[in-house]
Amino acid sequence: MEPLERLGLEALAQRYRDGRLNPVTVAEWCAERHGRFGSSLNAYKTWDGDGLRRQAGLAAAAFEAGRDLGPMQGIPFSAKDLYGVPGLPTYAGSPMPLPDQWEQAGPVVNRLLRQLAPVSGKTHTVEFAYGGLGTNPHWGAPRNPWSPDVHRVPGGSSAGAGVSLMEGSALLALGTDTAGSVRIPASMTGTVGIKLSHGRWSLEGIVPLCASFDTPGLLARSVEDAVWAMEAIEECAMPRRDQVAGLRIGVPEAFFWEETDPGVAETVRQALAELEAAGARLVPLDLADLDEAYGYFRQGGLTPPELYAFLTRDLPEWLDTLDANVRQRLEAGKAFPAWEYIQRRDRFAAIGKAAITQLAKVDVMAFPTVPSTPPTLAMLEPEGAYPQQNLKALRNTCIANVLGLCAITLPVGLDAARMPVGMSLMAGTGADPALIAAGLAVEQALGRGVDRLGLPPLAAFP
Amino acid sequence: MEPLERLGLEALAQRYRDGRLNPVTVAEWCAERHGRFGSSLNAYKTWDGDGLRRQAGLAAAAFEAGRDLGPMQGIPFSAKDLYGVPGLPTYAGSPMPLPDQWEQAGPVVNRLLRQLAPVSGKTHTVEFAYGGLGTNPHWGAPRNPWSPDVHRVPGGSSAGAGVSLMEGSALLALGTDTAGSVRIPASMTGTVGIKLSHGRWSLEGIVPLCASFDTPGLLARSVEDAVWAMEAIEECAMPRRDQVAGLRIGVPEAFFWEETDPGVAETVRQALAELEAAGARLVPLDLADLDEAYGYFRQGGLTPPELYAFLTRDLPEWLDTLDANVRQRLEAGKAFPAWEYIQRRDRFAAIGKAAITQLAKVDVMAFPTVPSTPPTLAMLEPEGAYPQQNLKALRNTCIANVLGLCAITLPVGLDAARMPVGMSLMAGTGADPALIAAGLAVEQALGRGVDRLGLPPLAAFP
Repeated sequence: MEPLERLGLEALAQRYRDGRLNPVTVAEWCAERHGRFGSSLNAYKTWDGDGLRRQAGLAAAAFEAGRDLGPMQGIPFSAKDLYGVPGLPTYAGSPMPLPDQWEQAGPVVNRLLRQLAPVSGKTHTVEFAYGGLGTNPHWGAPRNPWSPDVHRVPGGSSAGAGVSLMEGSALLALGTDTAGSVRIPASMTGTVGIKLSHGRWSLEGIVPLCASFDTPGLLARSVEDAVWAMEAIEECAMPRRDQVAGLRIGVPEAFFWEETDPGVAETVRQALAELEAAGARLVPLDLADLDEAYGYFRQGGLTPPELYAFLTRDLPEWLDTLDANVRQRLEAGKAFPAWEYIQRRDRFAAIGKAAITQLAKVDVMAFPTVPSTPPTLAMLEPEGAYPQQNLKALRNTCIANVLGLCAITLPVGLDAARMPVGMSLMAGTGADPALIAAGLAVEQALGRGVDRLGLPPLAAFP
Repeated sequence: MEPLERLGLEALAQRYRDGRLNPVTVAEWCAERHGRFGSSLNAYKTWDGDGLRRQAGLAAAAFEAGRDLGPMQGIPFSAKDLYGVPGLPTYAGSPMPLPDQWEQAGPVVNRLLRQLAPVSGKTHTVEFAYGGLGTNPHWGAPRNPWSPDVHRVPGGSSAGAGVSLMEGSALLALGTDTAGSVRIPASMTGTVGIKLSHGRWSLEGIVPLCASFDTPGLLARSVEDAVWAMEAIEECAMPRRDQVAGLRIGVPEAFFWEETDPGVAETVRQALAELEAAGARLVPLDLADLDEAYGYFRQGGLTPPELYAFLTRDLPEWLDTLDANVRQRLEAGKAFPAWEYIQRRDRFAAIGKAAITQLAKVDVMAFPTVPSTPPTLAMLEPEGAYPQQNLKALRNTCIANVLGLCAITLPVGLDAARMPVGMSLMAGTGADPALIAAGLAVEQALGRGVDRLGLPPLAAFP
């Protein structure tokens, strides 16, 4: 048997069905990995090893009884602690469990549960998902699995999602993305992250941050795996694209290359050169008014009033114990006038509409997912350092959210600090299937993360 | 030939095509009517008699050349002065013409123009459509054509739309409806008004009031005529319903019967009794939380910040000359916090979602369109009288807007003051075709306005 670290979900599912592998074996492997690395990496708010084994047993029993309930049967996944999962508390990164209603599963989790995909547990999140680095003063930040010597952030707000994949305790991770919260942790942990078009998947059963831009999303160990899970959740086949020859990749000259740390831009440009050598067509493409859109985002975008509206109505007691970094930005939501919210919303929509027209000229647009090397916790300590590092991490990814686009990030190399670098592919609203197809072809040309970057140095962790 | 006052659009269109009638003759009739009653009734901000004749000539020439460009060819219509119509200034009820871009036609006007429907002119509106009675201190309120002795309001904000139909200067009138601005003037002038589901027709080329709830809409002399125009604009056939037998009509017990002036509720109940006698099934049906929704509406709903956002961005100079009645309510939009706007919006959506579930139990829900006898201008003069009368006029109609439903009003009789009474039929989001079909059947059972109410006493005007 290949090592499970290298086995894709499609191959795994095939082995379940031809009897070469059993869901219980895989669950035991996941649990064993968590036992070994869990205390170092701190991916989970709530680890549920018993539930994982029990559900894997059920999936195995169903296979034995000849029942095939779907592609995700027997494949362990972790859920960001914003998702309701029956029987597991939802903290949403706060110090207290939320009321019971937040344990109820929405459609995304339900699809996976009905296919008998076992849940490994609930992964850490920034409090109420409001931050891009992955920090949390109540529960600690998960450790970035690529940095054993110093605690670097894992990216956020789906802080434990990518870590759970690299740990090996889950083979798929549910995250949410409001400004990059799936793609940033994916990029920083060397995994794949998908931010779908807003509205494609229901937000029901997920604690909101900024409903106008919130999207459920997936982290996986490869684009192939992400597509496998996406097809399972949508119960619908995605189009495939076998090669990058002829793929039109828009390459921006402005905005997306700014503020990049050593090795980030170079690694993405190298990947693009490889794609061009394989026959892809690199087309200069810039979107209009990105500085304006990012300017509004720097001022909070639409989040402070939307989060404040939610918390004051549904969780007023949670306002008293907020992470100072969350509270500070939320404060702006109290007095922010509606007319300005409306003007911002309308400008985002207008700039997004123009972007979609531009994006229609290519198959995808490509750029570095995160300009930053994942900062160390120490770098975030000085006064004013957190907001600056947080904004820097979010600057490229937030564009897809505020403009209503879809995007996928995949690992393309390591930066000067030997930390993973993600490259984003972005496309217009609703172009998710074409985006995924392009992602598959790009992955095929460049190699999966496990092949291109290798595995993170888990054994070196203290 | 039948008198044109009694001729439906379908019959008129047939006569154009079999040569019994000519668009120029009809345009001349419209112009002659306007010449006789225009100065008394004051329906138009901009009357365009020359354009009307010229376009009618073009429609006639096209018929002669064997060109049939659509159902509205040669049928004169008036446009509320919020719609861009090339060559005619747009004032939106303000003292100054708006910048040229607001003269550009959007899709609704374009569909009519491309079918060679002649435009009679731009009808008066409340300033920026912000009011339900039809008053305007800059240009005066059109007179209600049913009240020759005393100046009663025509309903608003599409203040001149229904008046243009009753005057006979247009056979179709474009209005807009944000809280009742099509249905109130239709009800008050004895005409038919349709408020479509939000988003069904584009708002492009129309000056906005509250984009969340704005809808283009039609006023016509009968449901039949409205359907004729609707099919022309949508370029798509609507379903028909021949009889009311079996039609399930939800009749509320709460909310919609409150504050009704003498004869209003009685007239609507009488119409419902006739429908029941004809085989319709009256089903008790109340929607939940209407008092809460109306409570938010009384506090301004979403309009003050949305209008303020628009005016400060696009028309800042227009803020200085606002109607005091508009300014007073707009003031609330300056400091209104975004989080409260969001909470209100979300509650409207949640109450609307529940209402749609309730409405699915019937074909339509019926109630009085406007509780008020159209007030006289004198009644609006005392301090505090305008806001009170304005809210009263809007209370029943605003429900369809804030809950995202569709509705049609048709004239069913006269109240104790001998003023027209409209009955509303309301249905769930997107149920517009079924709603129209029900409206056709109801009109067939009760008779068109011209048959049931007769014609307004225009000859008695001073």
